[in-house]
Amino acid sequence: MKLATIRVDDRTTAVRREGEVLVDLGVPDVGAVLAGAPVADGKEYAVAEVEFAPLVPRPGKVVCVGLNYRNHIQEMGRDLPEYPTLFAKFADTLIGARDDIVRPAETEQFDWEAELTVVIGKEVRRADEAAAIEAIAGFTVLNDITCRDWQFRTREWLQGKNWDSTTPVGPYLVTPDEVGGPRPALDIRCLVDDQVMQKDTTGDLLFDPVELLRYVSTMVRLNPGDLIATGTPGGVGNARKPPVFLRGGETVVTEIEGIGRLENRVVAG
Amino acid sequence: MKLATIRVDDRTTAVRREGEVLVDLGVPDVGAVLAGAPVADGKEYAVAEVEFAPLVPRPGKVVCVGLNYRNHIQEMGRDLPEYPTLFAKFADTLIGARDDIVRPAETEQFDWEAELTVVIGKEVRRADEAAAIEAIAGFTVLNDITCRDWQFRTREWLQGKNWDSTTPVGPYLVTPDEVGGPRPALDIRCLVDDQVMQKDTTGDLLFDPVELLRYVSTMVRLNPGDLIATGTPGGVGNARKPPVFLRGGETVVTEIEGIGRLENRVVAG
Repeated sequence: MKLATIRVDDRTTAVRREGEVLVDLGVPDVGAVLAGAPVADGKEYAVAEVEFAPLVPRPGKVVCVGLNYRNHIQEMGRDLPEYPTLFAKFADTLIGARDDIVRPAETEQFDWEAELTVVIGKEVRRADEAAAIEAIAGFTVLNDITCRDWQFRTREWLQGKNWDSTTPVGPYLVTPDEVGGPRPALDIRCLVDDQVMQKDTTGDLLFDPVELLRYVSTMVRLNPGDLIATGTPGGVGNARKPPVFLRGGETVVTEIEGIGRLENRVVAG
Repeated sequence: MKLATIRVDDRTTAVRREGEVLVDLGVPDVGAVLAGAPVADGKEYAVAEVEFAPLVPRPGKVVCVGLNYRNHIQEMGRDLPEYPTLFAKFADTLIGARDDIVRPAETEQFDWEAELTVVIGKEVRRADEAAAIEAIAGFTVLNDITCRDWQFRTREWLQGKNWDSTTPVGPYLVTPDEVGGPRPALDIRCLVDDQVMQKDTTGDLLFDPVELLRYVSTMVRLNPGDLIATGTPGGVGNARKPPVFLRGGETVVTEIEGIGRLENRVVAG
């Protein structure tokens, strides 16, 4: 099953994809569907004609994982970690799958990070393996766009990762049964103006979605609609020689096989 | 003016303090008051008899500042920073002003951090000085209870700071006019079983509330009900010789002159 949140008039609505049609579910967004709001099939929209909102517009948590693909850890000059490195994004950073990424005037190092993202479907705490698998509603695509200069201003990364309207997420939540289960091995890519910048498989994650969900739920309850962005593979602009950053005007494509494709223009903000 | 969120039956309600009485405002919590929900005076409660919920039960953001008092920076062995160090807490960590702090079995280093906390009253982005002052609804008290062993597992602090039901916040939002303006210089203390562990003045903050609000709003819009915890003074358990940690059974008191007092027992979770 594929779910999305689209914009209709001045509101959003949750939809289910059926072929080239999106069926209105009568609730405001995918977050509400996951929280158990009663849904009922309504109006249909053509996939080609809709505007996507952030998949979950107001997640209670966006937990991000910092170093989780071997080749990205190596390009950042670090050792393989014993534990996942976690930081957070605020919901106000999120944009829809075709929205413009707003490049702040305050950064000179605006960079990309394609990420497989877990969408939580159930409240869960200290999940064992079975509970973790059951709590995964599905997967989506996110680009953890980062101001590297701000990321490295202090020892905490948060301020590089939390700029308003920088983080596309969506377009679809895809249930695990459609992508080979809760630990999918899928091609992940990020392209800037058609040039492939990142290319890997999500099967290379050091800490896979089930392990990450278990780890985070040790600390804090996870709720329906919470997101865990699982980290990015090698090929970020900052690690290139010479470094490459987004200046404005580029189109960033972020895609994961079988899950979805984000396509966002970078504009000055 | 002093506002609070209290528990009544199986819900919460916002109240305004008038002497020893709390006046029901007819909306679910202080977050709703700040977001502009229409309020109307209703039932009255005796201050001594109520149960406090987290001041804002579901803030969109809890932005925390890591190193912001000179003596705490020195005890942690660091240099004075050029920029504020920021990390985040999730709303599921928050508890009320008299609730039990839940000590997880997974930590051996459960520590305290008394903090003056700014409550945002208006949506604001890239605030100048005047806009920042206007966006401060008031101040409250928070204890950023921390699992030090988890904090230092990786280079990001988040996982030491985000344990379920560990972070008391409240009891009151106190408007700036009651505490000498937007940069208050007030005694702040943390006591464990009546022993004074932290004692300083909020006038010693390196980055004051107005500067912090401006800095965070450079990145991301701030919304009514968002919180900025401004950092903790020296005297945390981890920096004592020998170190002292919470084992369970202690009472932690966190108080700021003119703003409020948290009193929380530590229980096993």
